[in-house]
Amino acid sequence: MQPMPYIDQHRERFLAELFELIRIPSVSTDKAYQAEVRRAAEFLRERLLEAGADHAELCETGGNPIVFGQKIVDPAKPTVLVYGHYDVQPADPVELWETPPFEPTVRNGKIFARGACDDKGQMYMHVKAFEYMVRSGTLPCNVKFMIEGEEESGSAALPAFLRANQAKLRADTLILSDTSMIDNDTPSISTGLRGICYLQVEVTAAARDLHSGIYGGAVYNPINTLCQMIAALKNHANRVTIPGFYDDVVELSTQERTQLAQAPFDAQAYMAESGFYALQSEEGYSPIEGATIRPTLDVNGIWGGYTGEGSKTVIPAKAYAKISMRLVPNQTPEKINQLFTDYFQHLAPPGVRVKVTPHHSGQPIVTPMESVAYKAAEMAYQTTFGKAPIPQRGGGSIPIIPLFKEVLGLDAIMMGFGLDSDALHSPNENYGLFNYFRGIETIPYFYHYYAQLVAKLSK
Amino acid sequence: MQPMPYIDQHRERFLAELFELIRIPSVSTDKAYQAEVRRAAEFLRERLLEAGADHAELCETGGNPIVFGQKIVDPAKPTVLVYGHYDVQPADPVELWETPPFEPTVRNGKIFARGACDDKGQMYMHVKAFEYMVRSGTLPCNVKFMIEGEEESGSAALPAFLRANQAKLRADTLILSDTSMIDNDTPSISTGLRGICYLQVEVTAAARDLHSGIYGGAVYNPINTLCQMIAALKNHANRVTIPGFYDDVVELSTQERTQLAQAPFDAQAYMAESGFYALQSEEGYSPIEGATIRPTLDVNGIWGGYTGEGSKTVIPAKAYAKISMRLVPNQTPEKINQLFTDYFQHLAPPGVRVKVTPHHSGQPIVTPMESVAYKAAEMAYQTTFGKAPIPQRGGGSIPIIPLFKEVLGLDAIMMGFGLDSDALHSPNENYGLFNYFRGIETIPYFYHYYAQLVAKLSK
Repeated sequence: MQPMPYIDQHRERFLAELFELIRIPSVSTDKAYQAEVRRAAEFLRERLLEAGADHAELCETGGNPIVFGQKIVDPAKPTVLVYGHYDVQPADPVELWETPPFEPTVRNGKIFARGACDDKGQMYMHVKAFEYMVRSGTLPCNVKFMIEGEEESGSAALPAFLRANQAKLRADTLILSDTSMIDNDTPSISTGLRGICYLQVEVTAAARDLHSGIYGGAVYNPINTLCQMIAALKNHANRVTIPGFYDDVVELSTQERTQLAQAPFDAQAYMAESGFYALQSEEGYSPIEGATIRPTLDVNGIWGGYTGEGSKTVIPAKAYAKISMRLVPNQTPEKINQLFTDYFQHLAPPGVRVKVTPHHSGQPIVTPMESVAYKAAEMAYQTTFGKAPIPQRGGGSIPIIPLFKEVLGLDAIMMGFGLDSDALHSPNENYGLFNYFRGIETIPYFYHYYAQLVAKLSK
Repeated sequence: MQPMPYIDQHRERFLAELFELIRIPSVSTDKAYQAEVRRAAEFLRERLLEAGADHAELCETGGNPIVFGQKIVDPAKPTVLVYGHYDVQPADPVELWETPPFEPTVRNGKIFARGACDDKGQMYMHVKAFEYMVRSGTLPCNVKFMIEGEEESGSAALPAFLRANQAKLRADTLILSDTSMIDNDTPSISTGLRGICYLQVEVTAAARDLHSGIYGGAVYNPINTLCQMIAALKNHANRVTIPGFYDDVVELSTQERTQLAQAPFDAQAYMAESGFYALQSEEGYSPIEGATIRPTLDVNGIWGGYTGEGSKTVIPAKAYAKISMRLVPNQTPEKINQLFTDYFQHLAPPGVRVKVTPHHSGQPIVTPMESVAYKAAEMAYQTTFGKAPIPQRGGGSIPIIPLFKEVLGLDAIMMGFGLDSDALHSPNENYGLFNYFRGIETIPYFYHYYAQLVAKLSK
């Protein structure tokens, strides 16, 4: 790898700008932060112009604005579209943070803050790599940035925006950094992501809350019932019991599973890093397979009855849960949503009424590894890490990626530089300084090889 | 029944005073209301003096004060000790009240307010019955009032108070109105109450909250696990599965069950009045038996993960529940607490750690029906209702009643005038005007017959 003096010289400023962005609490799931979300968008628009964009704007969507910026060096050259998001998850439970969530703090070579990795840190690498290429006169193709502010709350405005702006967003490839790599010595590129189907359920047993002394033993308790229904959604093999749930799952071949199993995995280190006391996966599959190539069902939230201090002898009228299922190819959220709803209604005993409300959903994806863009990414990692990246299936979901394919015809190249231990969505989220700067160094090589390969092909 | 002109003449004032007491939000489970709780105690002390007490005071306990008042007409005569409580349950969920919880409103002949029945309405009947007897010169024996302010939060100060004040509280019988009767045409006296064992459980699977996309499928989710553990606490026959749970239960004879089954019961009316969609009881027992002579297990509250608006893809570190069991003779809360804790720990899979914390508890009780006091109560109901009261086992618990027996040697006569449909602990709690005034009329007859029977016995 050749030295990149510009990046070294501006290292402190590259970090200071990221910190300034992180200090804006752009939480998109809570309307109370709406003004901050807009402030983050405006900040980003200004930085894109400073970095060298010809043009940058806030595109109004009815929700949070989408930041669009571009630099067209030559209409005849290929165009790279960069996707990212400037919104973040809520910081709660705030009391579990060691340092304030919106005041980035460096400890042990890592930046601790909400959004440090997801996705402010990873997204801003692209802005700084772009600046580097502009300033060093090495930008080999056109660039468009599309940075949204609703990824953490379901990207509600994005589908309509894509459909309405197909010409504006026209590009030859799409890159983003919103996934992870195996570890700092083992670069990897995400070649697939699970989909998601997220629902809320409400179980009602009575018209009002009642005294558990007077009625207990004669009636249905909606909390006990909800627990029984949730327990019935999985069996002892830790498989989801919803009829038809696995019907469309593409089983990987033994060869594919062997390949995936080559990624280094240390169960003790994984537990130490995640803080879990033990691992548990679907019978017949390893924990890593459980977290990547297998579908899941998790309760993300539950509530009902008296949850305050002390005790209250109540049988509540209702109990609630938020339940999500991670999906793998070729499951579809539409079908899984229907199967879940039907089965959950079926599980309900005669004494309760059940309401199932879909929240957000996303299709599972697999990216082709034979494309020019994928090859360019591989070569970029090879250059900066000195070794070829391992293709890796990721466990999380980026629900809008299938939409890019559908509306813009683009497969996404997922160049994640984060680690699974970065505590995304959790207290003490962090992102390594190594990862931030290694990303800024690797991205220009992607542009370099991509332009080179496209030029070769068109000869 | 002879007319009671004094009560008719002062009807409006008797109601206005109760309303004034109800307007003081004396919620004992929430420390924010501490000043209001004390204001209610002071109000009651003043009313006892006005009604004719020789003496009335607030007894400090470290918690909420106990209101003590007395009138000694003749030390040679028998003494009646009246127990009640002036504290109330929280009003939440406040949005489900049709009229403000602390502004008593009369609709369809019922007073709607928190505490209208439990226990302000039922307790204040004794104060007004006492006033009537004093003013009409018919008080046939000594009276002591002991009205506490922590019944709804576990009566923490009462045991020490009883032990420290045995001479002051010395009496020949104990009466209270904190239970219900079958219906307004079917008077009944409670002859037994279930005990209670109330606990909080905490299930921890990890040291911190984690992203469900990255870890889902590889780890234990504490909410799913808690649901499975709760589901395992009951079987399909709706019996509690805790080993040894039923070992000490005194099974009623067929004759006793036949007698209890004579109380009128209309399942449709019961459901309409409670708002439940269906009834469910332990296999082999009727709903009424399930709610009175059988032990239960109910989850009173559950929480964990993200419970706000929208969605968050989290696997939380912890999940919690509040669980209570109603006990019947001869179960003891000490033993049940231990059996529950052992079994709940046993149910925990290797991936979670479980903490069980006892809240409050109370022994189940059965009152003798051969006592002079019970006979006097029977005669009083016979006089005002024109028919003999049915002995009835109640479902709820008044945990301190066994303590009266243990420390003061007194069996309690439970002259409840409320109805099960009064929505105790629920939104829109209410108490019938009929019940309030019928209570005020019936209580003086109890004193009358009690003094008469004691005098006859001592001849």
